[in-house]
Amino acid sequence: MLTKEENALLTQTGPGTPMGEVFRRYWLPALLSSELPSPDCPPVKFTLLSEDLVAFRDSRGRVGVLDRYCPHRGSSLYWGRNEEEGLRCVYHGWKFDVAGTCVDMPNEPIESRFKEKIRTLAYPVEERGGVVWVYMGPPEQRPQMPELEWTRVPDSYIYVTKRFQLCNYLQNVEGEVDSSHISFLHGRVTPSGESATAGVNPIGGNIQGTSLIDRSPVFQVKETDYGLLIGARRNAGPDRFYWRLTQFLMPAYTMIPSDPGSPISFTAAIPVDDTHMVGFTVTWRPDQPLSKDDIAQIEAWRGIHTEADANFRPLRNIDNEYMIDREAQRQGSFTGIRGIREQDLAVQEDQWGPVTQRDREHLGTTDLAIIAMRRLLLRDASRLEEGIEPPEPHNGAAYRVRSVALTLDRAVDWEAGAKEHLAATR
Amino acid sequence: MLTKEENALLTQTGPGTPMGEVFRRYWLPALLSSELPSPDCPPVKFTLLSEDLVAFRDSRGRVGVLDRYCPHRGSSLYWGRNEEEGLRCVYHGWKFDVAGTCVDMPNEPIESRFKEKIRTLAYPVEERGGVVWVYMGPPEQRPQMPELEWTRVPDSYIYVTKRFQLCNYLQNVEGEVDSSHISFLHGRVTPSGESATAGVNPIGGNIQGTSLIDRSPVFQVKETDYGLLIGARRNAGPDRFYWRLTQFLMPAYTMIPSDPGSPISFTAAIPVDDTHMVGFTVTWRPDQPLSKDDIAQIEAWRGIHTEADANFRPLRNIDNEYMIDREAQRQGSFTGIRGIREQDLAVQEDQWGPVTQRDREHLGTTDLAIIAMRRLLLRDASRLEEGIEPPEPHNGAAYRVRSVALTLDRAVDWEAGAKEHLAATR
Amino acid sequence: MLTKEENALLTQTGPGTPMGEVFRRYWLPALLSSELPSPDCPPVKFTLLSEDLVAFRDSRGRVGVLDRYCPHRGSSLYWGRNEEEGLRCVYHGWKFDVAGTCVDMPNEPIESRFKEKIRTLAYPVEERGGVVWVYMGPPEQRPQMPELEWTRVPDSYIYVTKRFQLCNYLQNVEGEVDSSHISFLHGRVTPSGESATAGVNPIGGNIQGTSLIDRSPVFQVKETDYGLLIGARRNAGPDRFYWRLTQFLMPAYTMIPSDPGSPISFTAAIPVDDTHMVGFTVTWRPDQPLSKDDIAQIEAWRGIHTEADANFRPLRNIDNEYMIDREAQRQGSFTGIRGIREQDLAVQEDQWGPVTQRDREHLGTTDLAIIAMRRLLLRDASRLEEGIEPPEPHNGAAYRVRSVALTLDRAVDWEAGAKEHLAATR
Repeated sequence: MLTKEENALLTQTGPGTPMGEVFRRYWLPALLSSELPSPDCPPVKFTLLSEDLVAFRDSRGRVGVLDRYCPHRGSSLYWGRNEEEGLRCVYHGWKFDVAGTCVDMPNEPIESRFKEKIRTLAYPVEERGGVVWVYMGPPEQRPQMPELEWTRVPDSYIYVTKRFQLCNYLQNVEGEVDSSHISFLHGRVTPSGESATAGVNPIGGNIQGTSLIDRSPVFQVKETDYGLLIGARRNAGPDRFYWRLTQFLMPAYTMIPSDPGSPISFTAAIPVDDTHMVGFTVTWRPDQPLSKDDIAQIEAWRGIHTEADANFRPLRNIDNEYMIDREAQRQGSFTGIRGIREQDLAVQEDQWGPVTQRDREHLGTTDLAIIAMRRLLLRDASRLEEGIEPPEPHNGAAYRVRSVALTLDRAVDWEAGAKEHLAATR
Repeated sequence: MLTKEENALLTQTGPGTPMGEVFRRYWLPALLSSELPSPDCPPVKFTLLSEDLVAFRDSRGRVGVLDRYCPHRGSSLYWGRNEEEGLRCVYHGWKFDVAGTCVDMPNEPIESRFKEKIRTLAYPVEERGGVVWVYMGPPEQRPQMPELEWTRVPDSYIYVTKRFQLCNYLQNVEGEVDSSHISFLHGRVTPSGESATAGVNPIGGNIQGTSLIDRSPVFQVKETDYGLLIGARRNAGPDRFYWRLTQFLMPAYTMIPSDPGSPISFTAAIPVDDTHMVGFTVTWRPDQPLSKDDIAQIEAWRGIHTEADANFRPLRNIDNEYMIDREAQRQGSFTGIRGIREQDLAVQEDQWGPVTQRDREHLGTTDLAIIAMRRLLLRDASRLEEGIEPPEPHNGAAYRVRSVALTLDRAVDWEAGAKEHLAATR
Repeated sequence: MLTKEENALLTQTGPGTPMGEVFRRYWLPALLSSELPSPDCPPVKFTLLSEDLVAFRDSRGRVGVLDRYCPHRGSSLYWGRNEEEGLRCVYHGWKFDVAGTCVDMPNEPIESRFKEKIRTLAYPVEERGGVVWVYMGPPEQRPQMPELEWTRVPDSYIYVTKRFQLCNYLQNVEGEVDSSHISFLHGRVTPSGESATAGVNPIGGNIQGTSLIDRSPVFQVKETDYGLLIGARRNAGPDRFYWRLTQFLMPAYTMIPSDPGSPISFTAAIPVDDTHMVGFTVTWRPDQPLSKDDIAQIEAWRGIHTEADANFRPLRNIDNEYMIDREAQRQGSFTGIRGIREQDLAVQEDQWGPVTQRDREHLGTTDLAIIAMRRLLLRDASRLEEGIEPPEPHNGAAYRVRSVALTLDRAVDWEAGAKEHLAATR
């Protein structure tokens, strides 16, 4: 349980907020590269950390991210002309390049030097792994790019999707670091009400129903250079433990485990404003292209990637009650909702509303990772208020990690036993 | 005219408000029983007195009404599994019975006793007359069930409907106790503009146009053990008066009059929050099933029952301007709107907005019952703030009343003359 | 740039605000006469300067504008019966004439004199030029009707349209007095990115592309008895200037220029509330009916009149992104949006939101007229707060002006050279 004040601190990321400052120390996934498919294509408007922005890809293929509104009289640059290495406001023709420099001001007299006084807000941009990343913090604190494995492999090795989610970002992060809910939310039950001891592993691998049998995992959390390594231990026969290792990477990235050899997953929960977020989900293979079967499995939309419309709104959403099928729920699906991600949406988008009220919660033993993750965020926010910069953003190499699910001898130390699976090779 | 403060007091019923406390001393109609048609059927979410709740019918057929949100981390129990005598949260499997007891907490270790510390808010429930009643007040003040006649007859004797109304509850109550508006809102006029002296009695009985001829009734109000008995007297020939007797039953129930021998009516105006309400309307015969003709008349949807969609939204509503027919209005319908209830909706859902501004009103002689009803509510709220509990909830038998419309000799005392018609026989 | 306080002062026009008081010194266009097509037709509801009103045309053809809500208990008179020289509330039959007098109160006893104590708010109304004008200020300050030429010609000489616009009124006024934006927003460009030196004049006349060639006009502003006369000068060959003269008429009317001999135009930007406005656009010929070709050109909806639905909502609006055609934008239309007015809507309806933030702007040399217009409004508001009434409303004859676009010898004084074109003849 948190105080109302701590909850506000954790969930508010607009300009000037302590947690907003923490987010403004990191490169953040902002758009899919495919939203800006070609030089001089139409601009895209979006909101990030409660700031209204516009993105465009210039004639040379560089992506610019600018304040959405023209500094002249505030017209939206979203209507702008994307032409000749700049985005031009349609009201009076002011034109800005990707750096925010005003490169043309045709409504002023030729001799005017007013143009030189005008800049618009522009944020640094990088493109990696099919994603447009933005850095919104102070220039002198500009961090390294996180060396996430999926940003370092060929395009054919990765599959990236984006979705809007109608809640604060932290509800999604909490779901990701909470390995215990998979036994329920994503599970199946027999008609008698007992969890099935066999059946499809909802996460996609072959765990022989283990996580469904032992439904009260023991959590262990280790702080790392990038965030947290979270171990959730379940009994798996008399001599062995089944370990699900989840990565939490500052400020709001997670990797839920896969079986060794399966495609690996990454998610980011990016605040749009304090009651909306964008989720990015990535699946990749480190050393070969995704197979047709890998892709077919993703595009069956039963896993962690959502089927969404052209505006990234999930097709199964709160307005249609996630198309919940109460008869299916009765017959064995724990929720009656199709799709891992949609099941998450159902529990995350209305948790005492769009911003959950953490002063009302009752945490149990399986919420250990959630507590640790919140503590880390609060600590970094509090330190930054005192002027102490977070170290993680400046250690891009630390992000070269993976997550894994595996069984180990009970006697084996989990971190040591999983070590080879946790290091990214790319 | 009231002060702004009195108006706020009368209209606000959320937790902790004085009038909210008054409502929390009564059994309140919350749902139709048919919304929970069978054991273990899907749960229903609703809001009552500004509290978000969920209802379910358990395996034994008992109805539970719980806080909508799981006390663990606030996920909505509306997505929950209704199974084996409890509602189970889909996030981590916590399960609650109709009493709010946590009967299973499968994500905790077997040895954990955390479950014993967890309860969720649960309100007492009764089912009577096809309606789920809820009591939301202090357990030690739990009242008797009001012995309303329609809750004591066989199902085939009653017809119950429910509708959402986009205004504060009190606007609806005021319409119900205001017998004078029927000469206008529900009337017909001849093309010359004069009220018709004959024609269909809009309320359903045979009053030979009396209420239409004498359009300025004289009101008399008597305080009773359950609320108010309201008499509205109209001239009906040289020697007789036409009396319409309306019952106001604390806290927000009314019975508008019917002719002796006709089906009888009851309504409840239940606050969802301060700008929305649910209306329940009941028609019954005390001593025999409703006839096919009774039902056909109701289901012509021209009376006090509304034609609504599956979500209880009236088909003729403010968004489609109640399908007002301006030509019909010109030809003789006073409003051009079809249906007694829809006519009420039109004048109630926008009375200086959804919460009428009683500091701006100008009350006349026919508003006497409205004044008395408000005074009663304000008095009970004020007393309760001083710790004096209202007596009405503890006198269930007092609710055994009916209303009636009849003509009496001018010399006859109205209460005495109507006495036999006012007592419920069941 | 203005302060936040100045911006609030300029943009807020509700009851009791300083700028609202200024607007309440003028006759304001409120409705099209055609919205009340015949005696006793259905009433119309609307909001003006944040006041909720209802209009009706009585049996004698007079238009009444009343407080929307009945003073009895606040029911909406919009549902009212418009009959026999008055609008009758459907709740209890109270009836009001165009002057706000309560002429019938049939729910009161015959001997009651309550009716005499009741008046409802009624505003004076005039109909001119196909428009219903309302005066909402103190009776003793009731001004003259502005003698606008288009209000003094036969109906066949004029074409009037109305549209809702989702922004504060001032954003529209600023667009109208800003002659410089036509070179951009309403222009075309060659695929090379340069403005076309020839092509259709977006305003409708024959200016041989002049305004497109010289895109940094020099502004001159003169204060007049009715507001401002604004000259925007562009180079037009070695010896001549091209002048676009725009009229700003207090409090929110404008005339953008036409070529001599072409139909003339007028617009009004009328506050609904602080984030919505109604725009009226008028095109007229002073001395002959509009030709079939004039009307065909208007009804091609490519100019300053908008194609709108029955509720005056533009068909190309922010919800459908004004049906922007990005390919057309690339091919030569500066915006890719069809229609002068729709182009204006795109830049006006989201200028840092629906109320632009003038403390963030960066004005240039071509914003001179905007600055002068704001100063005039602020001055009148400030004087009125000191009790000094604005003089303009009491000088109806001063509004007999036109605007014009023409080329003049560089040596000629612009006001003198344009004089004959600026005076209305009707």
